Amino acid sequence: MQSEIRILPVHGIGEVAPGDDLATLLLTALETSGLTLLDGDVLVVTHKIVSKAEGRLVDPATIEPSAFAHQIAAQGRKEANFQEVVLRESRRIVRMANGVLITETHHGLVCANSGVDESNVAGGQIVCLLPVDPDASARALRAALREATGTEVAVVISDTFGRPWREGQVNVAIGCAGLKPLSDYGGIDDPYGYTMHASVIAVADELASAAELVMGKIDRVPVALVRGYSYTRDDEARAQQLIREPRFDLFR
Amino acid sequence: MQSEIRILPVHGIGEVAPGDDLATLLLTALETSGLTLLDGDVLVVTHKIVSKAEGRLVDPATIEPSAFAHQIAAQGRKEANFQEVVLRESRRIVRMANGVLITETHHGLVCANSGVDESNVAGGQIVCLLPVDPDASARALRAALREATGTEVAVVISDTFGRPWREGQVNVAIGCAGLKPLSDYGGIDDPYGYTMHASVIAVADELASAAELVMGKIDRVPVALVRGYSYTRDDEARAQQLIREPRFDLFR
Repeated sequence: MQSEIRILPVHGIGEVAPGDDLATLLLTALETSGLTLLDGDVLVVTHKIVSKAEGRLVDPATIEPSAFAHQIAAQGRKEANFQEVVLRESRRIVRMANGVLITETHHGLVCANSGVDESNVAGGQIVCLLPVDPDASARALRAALREATGTEVAVVISDTFGRPWREGQVNVAIGCAGLKPLSDYGGIDDPYGYTMHASVIAVADELASAAELVMGKIDRVPVALVRGYSYTRDDEARAQQLIREPRFDLFR
Repeated sequence: MQSEIRILPVHGIGEVAPGDDLATLLLTALETSGLTLLDGDVLVVTHKIVSKAEGRLVDPATIEPSAFAHQIAAQGRKEANFQEVVLRESRRIVRMANGVLITETHHGLVCANSGVDESNVAGGQIVCLLPVDPDASARALRAALREATGTEVAVVISDTFGRPWREGQVNVAIGCAGLKPLSDYGGIDDPYGYTMHASVIAVADELASAAELVMGKIDRVPVALVRGYSYTRDDEARAQQLIREPRFDLFR
């Protein structure tokens, strides 16, 4: 039975630059925060610092906008150069209205502007893209932390996404390593003997959401440590498992 | 700056029956769990026990299915009587395919089967509806807890919903009292001087998701206590604020 879970902010990461070693930055920040990694901990890491370390930064001014990028720009408030960056990060446009672009990224994620983000990037003109392969980024960070400390942790890489029908964004998992992202209760009898169908919980998304509560948007806390959560360890886990196959999706 | 948050399961609620006083059951369970309410705590309560206490239980066998309920039943795996219960809880059908019904409830919530739930209800044949007014239920529980203990807490009433594009369900807020469900960072400068637009976080949903991690589906822990989260108190708050106006929604 699950007991108390603690959500701990990891302070002191500071500015991350292309080429930085995230595991080293993280371990230093954990020490600064008075925290030591334990087996079973979950680290939730905002994609932004992963993208920065991986050099996924673009100056839209250096990108030649296509004719279609100009079309999109004319219908919204963002410039053609920005829209061109978004188009290059997209494999499909899911909705386009009111100056908003909901796209499917090359990973299959569906979100606004393919996750291209203008905030919290030094200089103001530079935009930040999603990591090329957030699952690989999560696996690499998990392996580096294991090598450095000998502890077995899970890593979730997160971004805040909007949702249909509901106001506000929530933090979700776009990369995952070490824990099963979906917890399947299907086929298990409830306490009344009713066999539950389709009771699959996206625990990686819930962990990302829980972590966001200590991150804030302006506090510059890009990492949270979740301690005490009994997850199912899975060395092959990927956040890709959270993406619904288009043929089962009613809202494409 | 936000410090540690604790997510504590509240054990020992047991079976809830129509007419039960939820505040009393909850305070007894908190005592059993060795917990005392503190000012600023957030209680996340699964809608199921609220619905049961409010008598929102129906035996589909007593409901005469309409012609359309028979039509729906013929296309899926659920019986016409069940579909009739769903139709009566719906004001609109958003999608209907593969035997799945995504509906808009009378509250404006968009979810599968208008939230009508077959699991965890005694007898197996009885289904559980959403509370008539989950915000009112949350307000009543908050007021009763204040009266009984003198503490100012916030209350979130939750249900697990599926999402477009992503596998698995997550726990979201369908009722809310005492805390601002949306945390607005719009117009605030980030540390680089970029003024953030549209950075609204659905913190009530994130609190519901965090709470689900200690609830589980088969553990019968219908309540979690979130301690240490610095929320914006709002005595007029309603989870209705989390429902996007149809005219701004691209996925109706």
